Amino acid sequence: MIGAGRLSLNQATVRNLTAREAVELCVRHQIPAIGLWRDAVAGLGLAKTAATVRAAGLHVSSLCRGGFFTHADQQARAAAAADNRAAVLEAAELGADALILVSGGLAPGSRDLALARRMIADGIADLVPFAQSAGVLLGIEPLHPMFCADRCAISRLGEAVDLALRFPADAAGVVIDTYHVWWDPQLGADVERAAGRIASYQLGDWTLPLPADTLLGRGHLGDGVIDFRSITASVLAAGYTGYAEVEIFNQEIWDAPADDTAAAVRSRFAELLG
Amino acid sequence: MIGAGRLSLNQATVRNLTAREAVELCVRHQIPAIGLWRDAVAGLGLAKTAATVRAAGLHVSSLCRGGFFTHADQQARAAAAADNRAAVLEAAELGADALILVSGGLAPGSRDLALARRMIADGIADLVPFAQSAGVLLGIEPLHPMFCADRCAISRLGEAVDLALRFPADAAGVVIDTYHVWWDPQLGADVERAAGRIASYQLGDWTLPLPADTLLGRGHLGDGVIDFRSITASVLAAGYTGYAEVEIFNQEIWDAPADDTAAAVRSRFAELLG
Repeated sequence: MIGAGRLSLNQATVRNLTAREAVELCVRHQIPAIGLWRDAVAGLGLAKTAATVRAAGLHVSSLCRGGFFTHADQQARAAAAADNRAAVLEAAELGADALILVSGGLAPGSRDLALARRMIADGIADLVPFAQSAGVLLGIEPLHPMFCADRCAISRLGEAVDLALRFPADAAGVVIDTYHVWWDPQLGADVERAAGRIASYQLGDWTLPLPADTLLGRGHLGDGVIDFRSITASVLAAGYTGYAEVEIFNQEIWDAPADDTAAAVRSRFAELLG
Repeated sequence: MIGAGRLSLNQATVRNLTAREAVELCVRHQIPAIGLWRDAVAGLGLAKTAATVRAAGLHVSSLCRGGFFTHADQQARAAAAADNRAAVLEAAELGADALILVSGGLAPGSRDLALARRMIADGIADLVPFAQSAGVLLGIEPLHPMFCADRCAISRLGEAVDLALRFPADAAGVVIDTYHVWWDPQLGADVERAAGRIASYQLGDWTLPLPADTLLGRGHLGDGVIDFRSITASVLAAGYTGYAEVEIFNQEIWDAPADDTAAAVRSRFAELLG
């Protein structure tokens, strides 16, 4: 249904590698694209990372991440805005398909979810013209509701779509990460609504039991309960033509040899989605 | 906004107590209602529990719980149906305002969420006539999406409302537990839609960080991020006239003296919702 030519490896899946090592890993395993993280890019240097991925013939499917728009005071808000503009420029130089936005949870000391959501909308509105002029697509990512308080108050794909639709299609889209949205009874309908707005498609499985750190509760495709075939079919039916990026936060996988991980990513992808 | 005369203590908050001890605790702390659990009721005996709560002048705001409708085979389904009918009869004898239904996650070995949701709808449809003739109101409870795979594939209040509306109002309603639904951007609208169908209102706070066992990540009212005043206002505006039941799963609270817990439940309730 989706060929290995559209597989991307998100660097977080092999978190212990440097950007250069992650690029080399992709090349060794014939994975044609990579999702990069800003800290790793900074480690190697932005220009050097851009040159390295180009020399390797890799495509950058995403840069992780900007966002965190929810702050208690103007100074913190301004700092976040400046950092987001920096992230946009990095995404532009890397030629990334999208800059992933994790929008932030409740503002410090606040219990006002509606306020957090207004801050997020305002923050994105503020960033959009800059992103548009830099030719960078912002990907608004809904995170699983269990991260609503502390990481992202955008919890459902439908909310992300509503937000994205306020802005030009070349500047704002949504990120569909199976791990975060698989449970949503309206997922199918919201993926349809996201047509033309899907900035990134990320894959990770929901495994049980959840680990102590719920951020790390993701498994290789097929190790959990998510029906990847059906979700992927709806994403493709919505006209998505980009990469499918495997992003797994999992301590055991991080502790495994990266080549084993890359091989597993490739084979599971082929088995479940080929 | 809601007086101490409408406070109820769910037995799970003082899990180490027997049903009799929990009843005595409520009396000591002038808490006029209790939410009972079936295992504790069985421990004391159904008739004896009913007599004990009556003698104490307590109201039974809920019985926890029935449900778990999702099974791989007919035999397991039939066993669940029989157990649910038994739960209905227990709720009737206790005079409980509602029998709480936790509907079950994915069927064993299945990744088909739509199938799980059909099984749940079918299971409730099967149980409704029995509940109606016993004079018992079924409370369909949406659980937080992090429990979707293994405990309850009804993740949003809106889904629970849609289900309840298929059946007579005297037999099927919804449970609004702040811990499970606080994050939902459509909560306000769905509470409005639930008017006349709110079978139970439960309170527990969302505290951070989540503990290793996410089932136990609930705090005393005010220890977390939930805006109880605003959610309670919407529940009352929807015409709910029943009890507000404090249900907290938390190992530290279980380890604390039950009288301290009951006192905290009462004082936080008065402070945040009085």
